[in-house]
Amino acid sequence: MTDTSRQFIIGVDLGGTKIFAGAVSLDGARTSGMRSVSTQPELGADGVVDRMVALVEGVVLDTINETGATRKDFIGIGIGAPGPLDRDKGLVIVAPNLGWKDFPLRERISSRLNMPATLDNDANCATVGEFWLGAARGARNVVGITIGTGIGGGLIFNGELYHGSSDVAGEIGHTTIDVNGRHCKCGNYGCLEAYASGPAIATRAREALAREDNASMLTAMVDGQLDRITAELVYDAAKKGDGVANEIVRDTARYLGAGIATLLNVVNPDVVVVAGGVTQAGEALFGPLRTEVRRRAFKPAVQAARIVPAELPGTAGVIGAVATFKMSTLGGL
Amino acid sequence: MTDTSRQFIIGVDLGGTKIFAGAVSLDGARTSGMRSVSTQPELGADGVVDRMVALVEGVVLDTINETGATRKDFIGIGIGAPGPLDRDKGLVIVAPNLGWKDFPLRERISSRLNMPATLDNDANCATVGEFWLGAARGARNVVGITIGTGIGGGLIFNGELYHGSSDVAGEIGHTTIDVNGRHCKCGNYGCLEAYASGPAIATRAREALAREDNASMLTAMVDGQLDRITAELVYDAAKKGDGVANEIVRDTARYLGAGIATLLNVVNPDVVVVAGGVTQAGEALFGPLRTEVRRRAFKPAVQAARIVPAELPGTAGVIGAVATFKMSTLGGL
Repeated sequence: MTDTSRQFIIGVDLGGTKIFAGAVSLDGARTSGMRSVSTQPELGADGVVDRMVALVEGVVLDTINETGATRKDFIGIGIGAPGPLDRDKGLVIVAPNLGWKDFPLRERISSRLNMPATLDNDANCATVGEFWLGAARGARNVVGITIGTGIGGGLIFNGELYHGSSDVAGEIGHTTIDVNGRHCKCGNYGCLEAYASGPAIATRAREALAREDNASMLTAMVDGQLDRITAELVYDAAKKGDGVANEIVRDTARYLGAGIATLLNVVNPDVVVVAGGVTQAGEALFGPLRTEVRRRAFKPAVQAARIVPAELPGTAGVIGAVATFKMSTLGGL
Repeated sequence: MTDTSRQFIIGVDLGGTKIFAGAVSLDGARTSGMRSVSTQPELGADGVVDRMVALVEGVVLDTINETGATRKDFIGIGIGAPGPLDRDKGLVIVAPNLGWKDFPLRERISSRLNMPATLDNDANCATVGEFWLGAARGARNVVGITIGTGIGGGLIFNGELYHGSSDVAGEIGHTTIDVNGRHCKCGNYGCLEAYASGPAIATRAREALAREDNASMLTAMVDGQLDRITAELVYDAAKKGDGVANEIVRDTARYLGAGIATLLNVVNPDVVVVAGGVTQAGEALFGPLRTEVRRRAFKPAVQAARIVPAELPGTAGVIGAVATFKMSTLGGL
């Protein structure tokens, strides 16, 4: 018998700004060596691979020191990366924030570190992380939504990560909520992302201030330079009772509520996990969001679904990268 | 060895207006005894069960005559019924068109005909029928959309019918396409069904005629009584070159295209099967519908997905009821 508490899988979560990594024991009970570095995409793909390899070496050494594991106790590396990906071939097809095209990331990491590796979408990994060890533990059907610069998502159906027919599944940010609505970076109109991503929240705040001539502490917070408004500042101002900021948060809840209601009616999950900066707004967001979903979705779908903030901010991607390695090489969690 | 070409499963598709039934051989190669009767919901649940039983008896006799099968060659009955259902208990929870509440349909049919029975949602059955023997043969991930008085749907993921956490999954008609849009019967605003169902198409045509004062043959087709306009008349007029009717069909394609684009981005199917009266509009609908989806959805999702009309109009529900019996009792198709 293998002692699954002594064997480790390494997870790497590659983003445009930062790379996170850490190790998780095969039984999920122990997390070790968590760390991050800046990505520095200007170094090019090989330079970024160097940084990933060095980061993983640090994780391995720390884990050995912390747990008494030996090098042969590390059985593989799960990698989460921005898509679109070719999972079969282990390629990053396009990653605008990294400037990569058709880059064989899985093979590079695997050969440099001499371990088997898997590659999956970062939003899928974040969802699987919450499913394995976070807010969606014990669920069967999960919708994961990560709200940041964009809105990404992952889907778990009947306990398994669902990739769809060409690895595109879970692009929840590109649910149309207004057929004639705002233009989205993806080329479509009225996508959820064009209303509720971090930059979209900041845009709506700027528009409200410009339009309404309302007194808002946001104006003072950026010394009148409206282009410095960020979603985070909006959450801060809302928490301090600012009327305009609270209106923006309520509208965000309404848009997210419409998008989540659609997902409830179509995929009928038992858990919806919301991750990303937007969860900083706390109940000011989740309260009206749940109300909106209740108003919009079918009752049995509403009753089946918990809508909860993520429990693993910052580490869900790493833990999920470990989990996808485990699922795809060992057949389950 | 059982001869799967000699054994039959009976399918029954219960609707508010008609009941369809037929038998399909276990290997799917032979369909027999297809027929329908009016439902007559005013007879009450027991009266409708009597009609279903008599219909099935006719299917059995015809199939025996046609194929030389004997009574013991009929191994069970799959039933498709309007939802919401409690599949575990075999109940129709509510069926407004039938006036039923918590009716134990599966048990009634099973005991009256002395055969095992299964119960599933009619839109799910229609999708599974197209997957087994129709337009989605050989696919892995399927979105089925049935457009009639309402818009129903079914989802097949990795070759299996997906029910979700409380049997609500696939309510595609209740995808929000306009967060501030038309009120829908379900209580929500801006549902796809409120724009593209048969009655919604007729409503939009009436609104266009009232608003635009346009010359349209539709006005003459109903002797000026606009409340007599139906979706079918709109398709007819569009085929004859009527400008207003063609505009309505193009708008329908646009709304359906937005809804289907969302589904492509979220569930990334390899086939989308569109069924129901709306397919009568033919390429006048499917042409602009495919264009709209191409404009709105991610390229790899568009490339993965065929969008096709159903191949089994009238019988998909029966064949799918057979298939759901086969899947749930024999473990696969």
